[in-house]
Amino acid sequence: MTPGRRPARRRLGIDVGGTKCLGVVLDEHGDVVGEQRRATPQGPDAIIDTLVELAGSLAPYDSIGVGVPGLVARNGVLRAAPNLVDINDFQVGSLLSARLGVDVHVDNDATAAAVAEWKVGAAKGVADCVMVTLGTGIGGGVIAGGRLIRGANGFTGEIGHMVVDPEGPPCPCGRRGCWERYASGSGLGRLARESAGGGRLRRVVELAGGDAELVRGEDVQVAAREGDTDALQVIDDFGRWVALGLVNLTNVLDPEMFVLGGGLAVSADLYLGPIERWFTQLLYAPHLRPHPIVRFALLGDRAGAVGAALLPEVH
Amino acid sequence: MTPGRRPARRRLGIDVGGTKCLGVVLDEHGDVVGEQRRATPQGPDAIIDTLVELAGSLAPYDSIGVGVPGLVARNGVLRAAPNLVDINDFQVGSLLSARLGVDVHVDNDATAAAVAEWKVGAAKGVADCVMVTLGTGIGGGVIAGGRLIRGANGFTGEIGHMVVDPEGPPCPCGRRGCWERYASGSGLGRLARESAGGGRLRRVVELAGGDAELVRGEDVQVAAREGDTDALQVIDDFGRWVALGLVNLTNVLDPEMFVLGGGLAVSADLYLGPIERWFTQLLYAPHLRPHPIVRFALLGDRAGAVGAALLPEVH
Repeated sequence: MTPGRRPARRRLGIDVGGTKCLGVVLDEHGDVVGEQRRATPQGPDAIIDTLVELAGSLAPYDSIGVGVPGLVARNGVLRAAPNLVDINDFQVGSLLSARLGVDVHVDNDATAAAVAEWKVGAAKGVADCVMVTLGTGIGGGVIAGGRLIRGANGFTGEIGHMVVDPEGPPCPCGRRGCWERYASGSGLGRLARESAGGGRLRRVVELAGGDAELVRGEDVQVAAREGDTDALQVIDDFGRWVALGLVNLTNVLDPEMFVLGGGLAVSADLYLGPIERWFTQLLYAPHLRPHPIVRFALLGDRAGAVGAALLPEVH
Repeated sequence: MTPGRRPARRRLGIDVGGTKCLGVVLDEHGDVVGEQRRATPQGPDAIIDTLVELAGSLAPYDSIGVGVPGLVARNGVLRAAPNLVDINDFQVGSLLSARLGVDVHVDNDATAAAVAEWKVGAAKGVADCVMVTLGTGIGGGVIAGGRLIRGANGFTGEIGHMVVDPEGPPCPCGRRGCWERYASGSGLGRLARESAGGGRLRRVVELAGGDAELVRGEDVQVAAREGDTDALQVIDDFGRWVALGLVNLTNVLDPEMFVLGGGLAVSADLYLGPIERWFTQLLYAPHLRPHPIVRFALLGDRAGAVGAALLPEVH
């Protein structure tokens, strides 16, 4: 049986994170009617045990979806997960299905978050939208023509690794100048540290305890809220890099809306002006189209779990 | 009536180019059973007259599609066309429909070429593929999940204006470092001219008549075929830039195949090795997936017209 081509009555979704697993149950309206958390254990066997126990605590349910951090193949295998210990080619979908006796739909956590925002969040009813999660790195999910785009291997939406400057700073992925080196939380910190030499960014460096090498994105945000002009300049530069990636995605996909989520979304008010100003300057043919709406995610920490619960309906 | 939800028996497609209009008729198998050319006149009224006459010369037909060079809105309006004279907000779809008495489906010419290669060409039956036309600039079309992706405004696939270096050379579009400044025919010429100072690229400069400022992409290709090592170095650099854009598209869309078309596709054998070598170096997680197949377009100059004929079935 394939549950959920029509909406199931109680839909279980689990978001597996680096430190915790969040399970939610949605009713037929998409409202969260049950919620449980567990610490994420180490190793595949322990993770499966935890997910089985977590699912049991939220029973009954009619369908299950799971979001995991990493590259997820279309058959539910987690190929690699930088933030989980000892996980490679983890058959999470088939192992859970065998234990629970129902189909389990698995996808990348940012893809799940995109599904959540599209189905019940900021982009509800929008046929063409791209979710961009600005956290330590950048993840994403693509909805086009009213459908989730998965790609040949299931790897659609690795937008943080678009190369925006081939001579740029090295990325942990092994290449240079990936978008997330600039437009993520760690990118904001890096932009600030690069500007902090020679007595500049004094207030930001002060917030970092006096050492320019220790400046983080958070320090820039605090100083910017105080009105510090150096910090606001870094924020403007950051907004330029965010806009650059959004422009590239617009040239490729022409979405109606971007939904920005992730840890940086909470300080959205700081960046939105610079993003929109730079977007207009960088877009191809900006005068010939309505620009995509840039909206902030509505579902917060629950987006991954809510979206996981909706995966059986969109896969 | 909306013709062609099921394949029409005789499907007319017209490709409007900067210098000529090509009309073809496809039979139920997708084979070309009629073909006519006309010079492209100047101005919207003259173009409509020419298209009506061209359509009449290929009658009877059950459906019509038209490909035009520029930004085409979903309602069939050509918003802007850099290669046509006096064309802005040209209501080509509704004007032709009124004259011919049938629905006319209009889309961008590179999108039409993508449809042709997907339906009856190099990517036949491939659910996730991206067409990349390498000509003077770069155009494209996106097929994902077995459907043509059009976007909110119909502008999907303006891939030549992905910014791959925000400090790069200026683009006629008004921005800097667009992909087509590097990976198109004009990009190849530019890469060569930049390398040609100080006595380098001697053979290429000789082929250009002795003036490094006059070097074109064609000169590089001729010298590379002679085995000139300087020219082969430029070809390698060109392949790196082509690969960079393909990598970005792969990170976003995860296609199974790229189809390369346009004027540069005829010298494909020169570039394919460098493109594939650089692709592996630049891709995120290259060891975790089968790489997209890079294939060259099969339909040549007819791709736009053949794809136009198929638009009513994919819109």
